[in-house]
Amino acid sequence: MTEIKKTDRTRVKRLPDRGRYDRATIDAILDEALIAHVGFEFDGAPAVVPTACWRGGDRLYIHGSSKSRMLMALRDGARACVCVTLMDGLVLARSAFHHSINYRSVVLYGSAVEITDPDEKIAALKDFTEKVAPGRWDEIRGPDPQEFKATMVLAIPIAEVSAKMRSGPPIDDEPDYALPVWAGVVPLAQSMGEPEPDPKLPPGTPVPDHARHLDRMGRR
Amino acid sequence: MTEIKKTDRTRVKRLPDRGRYDRATIDAILDEALIAHVGFEFDGAPAVVPTACWRGGDRLYIHGSSKSRMLMALRDGARACVCVTLMDGLVLARSAFHHSINYRSVVLYGSAVEITDPDEKIAALKDFTEKVAPGRWDEIRGPDPQEFKATMVLAIPIAEVSAKMRSGPPIDDEPDYALPVWAGVVPLAQSMGEPEPDPKLPPGTPVPDHARHLDRMGRR
Repeated sequence: MTEIKKTDRTRVKRLPDRGRYDRATIDAILDEALIAHVGFEFDGAPAVVPTACWRGGDRLYIHGSSKSRMLMALRDGARACVCVTLMDGLVLARSAFHHSINYRSVVLYGSAVEITDPDEKIAALKDFTEKVAPGRWDEIRGPDPQEFKATMVLAIPIAEVSAKMRSGPPIDDEPDYALPVWAGVVPLAQSMGEPEPDPKLPPGTPVPDHARHLDRMGRR
Repeated sequence: MTEIKKTDRTRVKRLPDRGRYDRATIDAILDEALIAHVGFEFDGAPAVVPTACWRGGDRLYIHGSSKSRMLMALRDGARACVCVTLMDGLVLARSAFHHSINYRSVVLYGSAVEITDPDEKIAALKDFTEKVAPGRWDEIRGPDPQEFKATMVLAIPIAEVSAKMRSGPPIDDEPDYALPVWAGVVPLAQSMGEPEPDPKLPPGTPVPDHARHLDRMGRR
């Protein structure tokens, strides 16, 4: 199990029992998440932008328009704090104070590098499509040279990173267990619904497996 | 319809058609979201922390331990960028380039004020509980003086703010509509599962309505 070296800012201080520093835990959260929230400084003030993310080995990738202000700022050296959060449940306790949320989150600090090598860039874009919809890359039209140029792909090393999580039932104060109030967890999950065909699709076009029965990881 | 005055940083520049500046749209997104990602500067670097949020009138509230580094930094004047994101669907297009995500997001810039008036603070905490589980506040034990002191509540004015959203089917390049590939939207939603009673609950304790049949807004 690869254990991440803690830094002052990745060590979980509030409720340290919730901190996790092993790559298996961190990678599982990153691989399940569809989006990350990227924090960076812009024009001298904090900014946060939600964006799709995917992992490849020891890097977390993001992408978008080559003209995106966030991507340009990160490419030009702005430091990033990337946060990924999965919510697993509402924790309903017997006291207001002990209500909580079950969750798994990752916080990654670092600077991004632009992926400019064409082979590496197309491989990264394929990885993203395959994460969301396995098998789709070979069915669709790939990027033409203009689209390829209009897309920026950045990678942030998974190095200064930690995870934090809560799971399980509420933890109430001992006397409160006698209170006549229901307590427990209401599970939360991101679910995927019945595929909605594009109205412009020829009738009878078969729905591919990757658009059906996707679990919350975007996988069959 | 209250229209928000745009500032340079709230005006949506990439894909400006996706920008929304009316309070009805912004409030609906904030009211549906359970968590926000708060960006701020900490020790001279960007930081992002996920935290529960709720709206009361013209303010967005967050709370947590009085010893939380994020809350202390914001209370002491750190500027915040708060982002709320709801994902509504995977947009599967005929070309890799036009794949997208249907989403609704809000970005709010501002500085927080601490809610110190006891009546205002308890009302805010009640509002949060009632957002997540309507009717629960009157069933549970409220905060005792020590818990009340150990909890910090901050409010950020909903003033410098905008929303951004995408909805509907993929928009493909005209020639690509002839490609023999399924295209459409796979809806995403946060769903709530069957309540899991705390193992320490006396058998037969009835499950309250607010733990059942919650929609993704945390409401019956």
